[in-house]
Amino acid sequence: MRTIKLVIAYDGTGYCGWQRQANGPSIQQEIERAAGIICNQQITVHGAGRTDAGVHALGMTAHFTMTGSLSCRALHKGLNALLPGNIRILAAEDEATDFHARFSALAKSYRYAFFTGSVLCPLRRLTTAHIPYTVSPEAITACLQIISGTHDFSSFETTGSRDKSRTSGRGAVRTIFRATIEETEPGLFHLSVTGDGFLRHMVRNLAGTVLEVGRGKRQVHDFSGILQARDRNRAGATAPAHGLTLLAVHYHRDW
Amino acid sequence: MRTIKLVIAYDGTGYCGWQRQANGPSIQQEIERAAGIICNQQITVHGAGRTDAGVHALGMTAHFTMTGSLSCRALHKGLNALLPGNIRILAAEDEATDFHARFSALAKSYRYAFFTGSVLCPLRRLTTAHIPYTVSPEAITACLQIISGTHDFSSFETTGSRDKSRTSGRGAVRTIFRATIEETEPGLFHLSVTGDGFLRHMVRNLAGTVLEVGRGKRQVHDFSGILQARDRNRAGATAPAHGLTLLAVHYHRDW
Repeated sequence: MRTIKLVIAYDGTGYCGWQRQANGPSIQQEIERAAGIICNQQITVHGAGRTDAGVHALGMTAHFTMTGSLSCRALHKGLNALLPGNIRILAAEDEATDFHARFSALAKSYRYAFFTGSVLCPLRRLTTAHIPYTVSPEAITACLQIISGTHDFSSFETTGSRDKSRTSGRGAVRTIFRATIEETEPGLFHLSVTGDGFLRHMVRNLAGTVLEVGRGKRQVHDFSGILQARDRNRAGATAPAHGLTLLAVHYHRDW
Repeated sequence: MRTIKLVIAYDGTGYCGWQRQANGPSIQQEIERAAGIICNQQITVHGAGRTDAGVHALGMTAHFTMTGSLSCRALHKGLNALLPGNIRILAAEDEATDFHARFSALAKSYRYAFFTGSVLCPLRRLTTAHIPYTVSPEAITACLQIISGTHDFSSFETTGSRDKSRTSGRGAVRTIFRATIEETEPGLFHLSVTGDGFLRHMVRNLAGTVLEVGRGKRQVHDFSGILQARDRNRAGATAPAHGLTLLAVHYHRDW
């Protein structure tokens, strides 16, 4: 058996998310279908994590096992030939048989994009949240400094369907290695965060809450209290899914 | 009667183009519908030109006449409230009554975006043509220098439905003020062109032909011959519509 690692980019618009579901098309299902045809065997694809409906990826990773001697180059080209244009395989390569897209991952990087001007460019509307208010990047930076490091992020976890990584014993404790905000064009902000793992909706809940601080609806010291409270009811709204993009999943300590 | 000038951005995906048509939704029709409701009168919108199905705009202009004292601010907000998110009004203002979006225009700027890498980012697929070949920016620049200035562009005009500006007596003679190519990211090229007017499909026909030179299928001196021939059969294929974006329509000599 071979283990194949895929690096995947997708426009999440119109998908029910990464994970196979009964209520709509998923990225996972599209890749399993295409890989099944090319490899002529039933394929189960394991993603590095899930992304919600409408969330995009520029560097999602996944793995699957297969038999046969098909070259990775042929597999790569074949997958892109069979997949719709809103899902693209960026790389396909053989990995060690103990490689696992989720369990081998050391860190993930996400970007949350939002625009604060009055009119959102129509060519950006599917990848950028529209927050038509003045925000203070300084206040947001102060929040991002507070979340950096190792904390219990219960206040930013959407409960209900529980993230499977919770079974690993670390509870809601996660480490944020880096969290920054950058204004890449006037009014267009990129909030970037890299961490060793993320709870369900954690990036969107963090984004929604730091945006409330940025707009002045809450203060930085309130934000500090929210993190310490470990209570989801204290945090702000979940920011819209379409502003979020999974940038990369890291397997080596070189991010 | 007041004359209102609009500056408009749109994602042309899914539209049959700017112009009202029987076979599908158009940008013009959407704006006329919205303006008719807000102004409570029948509105006819005159665009600075047409854009084909799938072509985008970041700075299309149009005008219409109306009666009443509705403020431009209310009109602007009202239009964006009624229009779908893939069409946005960037500005709405009163103009002199002799202002005409098409006849007052001095120049237009277009951008043609193409990507030469093997895998096109899914988040760019609706605004960027995929040309998966090595191209020579130097050869393309040589072509762009050849078209700069005043020439008869018959070789790059798609015949059939004739551009109405042809009735102005200048035939197929147009002036290109500026034509450049820039690699904004590895493999992602922006071909930008500003001219006093463009024939039907002219930018896409130019793009398709300079790309053939860039790929080495034709030589720069062939390109020169094509321009001089004034014969559409000599030029290359029409580049795909979705790579084209109308950037701006200029009414003052300050572009």
